Amino acid sequence: MIDRLRKFVPVLDWGRTYDGAAFSNDLVAAVIVTIMLIPQSLAYALLAGLPPEAGIYASIVPIILYAIFGTSRALAVGPVAVVSLLTASAVGQVAEQGTAGYVVAALTLALLSGGFLLTLGILRLGFLANFLSHPVIAGFITASGILIACSQLKHVLGVDAGGHTLPEMLGSLAAHLGETNPITLAIGTAAIAFLFWARKGLKPSLRNMGLGPKVSDLITKAGPIAAVVATTLVAWYFSLNERGLSIVGEVPQSLPPLTMPGLEPDLIAALAVPAVLISIIGFVESVSVAQTFAAKKRQRIDPDQELIGLGAANIGAAFTGGYPVTGGFSRSVVNFDAGAETPAAGAYTAVGLAIAAVALTPLIYFLPKATLAATIIVAVLSLVDLSILKKTWNYSKSDFSAVAATILLTLLLGVEIGVATGVAISVLMHLYKTSRPHVAEIGLVPGTQHFRNINRYKVETDPSVLMLRVDESLYFANARFLENLILVRVTEGCGIRNVVLMFSAVNAVDYSALESLEALNDRLRDMGVGFHLSEVKGPVMDRLKTAHLLQHLNGRVFLSQYAAWTALADRPSEPHEPVMADEMC
Amino acid sequence: MIDRLRKFVPVLDWGRTYDGAAFSNDLVAAVIVTIMLIPQSLAYALLAGLPPEAGIYASIVPIILYAIFGTSRALAVGPVAVVSLLTASAVGQVAEQGTAGYVVAALTLALLSGGFLLTLGILRLGFLANFLSHPVIAGFITASGILIACSQLKHVLGVDAGGHTLPEMLGSLAAHLGETNPITLAIGTAAIAFLFWARKGLKPSLRNMGLGPKVSDLITKAGPIAAVVATTLVAWYFSLNERGLSIVGEVPQSLPPLTMPGLEPDLIAALAVPAVLISIIGFVESVSVAQTFAAKKRQRIDPDQELIGLGAANIGAAFTGGYPVTGGFSRSVVNFDAGAETPAAGAYTAVGLAIAAVALTPLIYFLPKATLAATIIVAVLSLVDLSILKKTWNYSKSDFSAVAATILLTLLLGVEIGVATGVAISVLMHLYKTSRPHVAEIGLVPGTQHFRNINRYKVETDPSVLMLRVDESLYFANARFLENLILVRVTEGCGIRNVVLMFSAVNAVDYSALESLEALNDRLRDMGVGFHLSEVKGPVMDRLKTAHLLQHLNGRVFLSQYAAWTALADRPSEPHEPVMADEMC
Repeated sequence: MIDRLRKFVPVLDWGRTYDGAAFSNDLVAAVIVTIMLIPQSLAYALLAGLPPEAGIYASIVPIILYAIFGTSRALAVGPVAVVSLLTASAVGQVAEQGTAGYVVAALTLALLSGGFLLTLGILRLGFLANFLSHPVIAGFITASGILIACSQLKHVLGVDAGGHTLPEMLGSLAAHLGETNPITLAIGTAAIAFLFWARKGLKPSLRNMGLGPKVSDLITKAGPIAAVVATTLVAWYFSLNERGLSIVGEVPQSLPPLTMPGLEPDLIAALAVPAVLISIIGFVESVSVAQTFAAKKRQRIDPDQELIGLGAANIGAAFTGGYPVTGGFSRSVVNFDAGAETPAAGAYTAVGLAIAAVALTPLIYFLPKATLAATIIVAVLSLVDLSILKKTWNYSKSDFSAVAATILLTLLLGVEIGVATGVAISVLMHLYKTSRPHVAEIGLVPGTQHFRNINRYKVETDPSVLMLRVDESLYFANARFLENLILVRVTEGCGIRNVVLMFSAVNAVDYSALESLEALNDRLRDMGVGFHLSEVKGPVMDRLKTAHLLQHLNGRVFLSQYAAWTALADRPSEPHEPVMADEMC
Repeated sequence: MIDRLRKFVPVLDWGRTYDGAAFSNDLVAAVIVTIMLIPQSLAYALLAGLPPEAGIYASIVPIILYAIFGTSRALAVGPVAVVSLLTASAVGQVAEQGTAGYVVAALTLALLSGGFLLTLGILRLGFLANFLSHPVIAGFITASGILIACSQLKHVLGVDAGGHTLPEMLGSLAAHLGETNPITLAIGTAAIAFLFWARKGLKPSLRNMGLGPKVSDLITKAGPIAAVVATTLVAWYFSLNERGLSIVGEVPQSLPPLTMPGLEPDLIAALAVPAVLISIIGFVESVSVAQTFAAKKRQRIDPDQELIGLGAANIGAAFTGGYPVTGGFSRSVVNFDAGAETPAAGAYTAVGLAIAAVALTPLIYFLPKATLAATIIVAVLSLVDLSILKKTWNYSKSDFSAVAATILLTLLLGVEIGVATGVAISVLMHLYKTSRPHVAEIGLVPGTQHFRNINRYKVETDPSVLMLRVDESLYFANARFLENLILVRVTEGCGIRNVVLMFSAVNAVDYSALESLEALNDRLRDMGVGFHLSEVKGPVMDRLKTAHLLQHLNGRVFLSQYAAWTALADRPSEPHEPVMADEMC
């Protein structure tokens, strides 16, 4: 009972061995992470089209719930770039930005997403995330990075542009280019330039100054904080908000409020599909990050339990003024590098952010939105990696077509269509390939008991024995294809008296394929040709034994291909009317 | 050039060798088939909700076009039961039965279906039909048979009922039961009883009377004709139409008219999905029938060319007053049994039906609709075969779930949802199974060079060499699963110094799986464990050579598992820090 509970509430497990050393490590990590997360949370709220405090709120209760139910010890849960973009796209379709309805719809989206993740987790359906292939994920992240960066250009220019696809965004930006505010542009470009330099140039300089690698790294990561502080001071000192600079303005000084997501059936219906998409993409991103860190510390991640942890976090976000969250790479890196040992570090971060929400919000009144946009742009451009196109092109055209379609359609038609098409193409390509499997005619590699393709190796063969290795599981999509292929080979070959199908690569035989094998058996019997199987695997044999095929098999099942060769080669089989086969020649 | 033309127009091929003997055989077959087809064509038009002559028209031009473009020498193309039901269901959603719009919509459906088939054929996409698994087809045909029989009960009762699903039909019949016309019921039940007897009892009696099997068979098949003639005479003699019996009534005496399908965008949009469904189901039925007969005569069917033949036939139907057609089993059986040798028999049948359409239609004025309904009911009940449920239950629960869902949903929610769900379940089940593949730890079968599962066979092993046979192609859906599984096995095993993955069952490695293998290679190197592959197939090896994995492989690629065993077993590999692996124990 306790063990079972511990499985579903991992905190009961690691909590027992929590000691002073772990506590102090976690606390130090939490202080660092809190400082880093403040600008990031504000920026992602801006990206999602929500008031800045929503980003802070979405980082408090979700972190605590994930610390209780999640399995990763390094994962930091909260708003992330891609999910914020998806939120803006989904909520923008049901409400106007800046309205109360928009905020409520974001809560509903978090609730639906949390409910979906929790359901998948309880049903142990985490494997579904595997249907997002690596190239599709890579393509999607790259395209999203481009979209996100473009969506933030309006804040850097200080204009009021919109759009959810690349052509829409660029068109809207071009239309409003004349309204560019020079002060906003100056602040924004300065921030971008500084942040790029902090990423590329600062760290080597610090190392040259004799600082250790870890400290240099943390200072480098504090770049956004420096940009926020500096531009806020400039904006305040020169009252730049009176000259057209958009600033964050008043943010309520409050702990996360208790909020109620909208539950109208229309709203739920409109947000259901985006919620499923956000859940799956968020889950895939989160699990990838968690597994990366778990591998470094030789810990294990349980994907199904991760679903429960993320589900709880999102439901928490829905009731405390947040919006959809997931485990993010950049915040987890900070957490890990700062030395976090247990999920408790996350909980302390939550306390830190809560203090910030109550005490520090007046300080960000003059924070320019252009600075936040700059931090987003610099962060997401590191996600853009078009090399996946080249890599997949070299390796496999079908993987390439999936990634290319995902990138193009995400940019041109939006994130939802892009990723859905990518998944559909991956699945269809896989089905297509398995529907016309490779079938090799094989012979004995001389001096061994090993059989290989006669077209690739110098092998021994016997014209009276046709030995075929079917390189695919037999199932409905290829059953008829194989039946035809084998019949054609047999009718074209001269003097074939036995056919041996080597089943070493046949991992399953479904009912359609069973019927095809039975039909094949009957036809070969009519033609006076023996029909044998070899190297049938245990699970396949178990299944075939429940059917009639083996009883009526016009031949034998051999343990190995070599046993079949020894029994059949160089000796004619019993002459059951071999006339037909001869006539064909 | 000529050869290429011959490929697309098979008549140019068989037409060259056409002689007098084939002509007389074909002519005899055509006369018999014409007589058989008249009641069948009228009945299926009734089932499709169309005027009776549409069934005749749909059997004339389509037969000729198929004879020119199709590859089967025995297939008879025309209206069939399942496609007629699908037509009624699709067209019923856009127009009212009995209106001109209904007839035009049926023409449009035939045009769309023909265009779709033709496109698939030109693009050589015939393999798509393979995604309808045998169990799904069997379930769909069975459920359709039940639905069709129920849909005809209203004609036997003489009431005005409706509905497209089983509950709707039964509910509507129950509501109208009080209006039953006793004369219609008497004619209908008498016809059903006679036709059942003709199927089961007549043939043995004829054989007992000393008639040959072929003649007995043909006389038995003429049962519907006898029923049609007898009930028509009774209806005419007693003027039963004045007492509430529904009769066919006036049918225009005409050759197939030139008709124009409706081309309104709304109509096309509404009928596009049903047209795709009708095309695929019709194609699958037709190819199955054609292959059955081709096998008997050792001829070959080209599925892609069949698509072109059926596409042309449907387009022909659209412009000559017909509705969607395909190759039917019952009409092809008649054709085959009557001795048809070439597709020319079909053309002569078309001439026969054209004569019937011009000359014989006045004779069927008094033909009771109840008789036509009876011929349909008796014909389709032979399609109902629930044994597929038991067979798939015994063999494979996932096949069973696909067939059960197809039957239930077809009956309860209609043919389109039923078959779509069946296909979706088949595909998802397949993906699910391949996403968690069977991985066997293997050892050497003593005295051989053959390796089998250590849990099933008594085999030799070496604790320092973990040999795993992965029973599935590696692709995105199982890449991460395998990566985890192998790492867990390695970290749990004691003193493992080498891992050999036997790739005999790995038929493909996509880009996601390649990345997983690279990650696995890196992790095993970090742990000081060698990583080897064996029995990599030619096509997989070709692909892997384009990537970096093989250059960086922390081990070797062996031709056979036995070669790997000889090289690695009983000898420790180079001790690249084997500390980690030991610590885990």
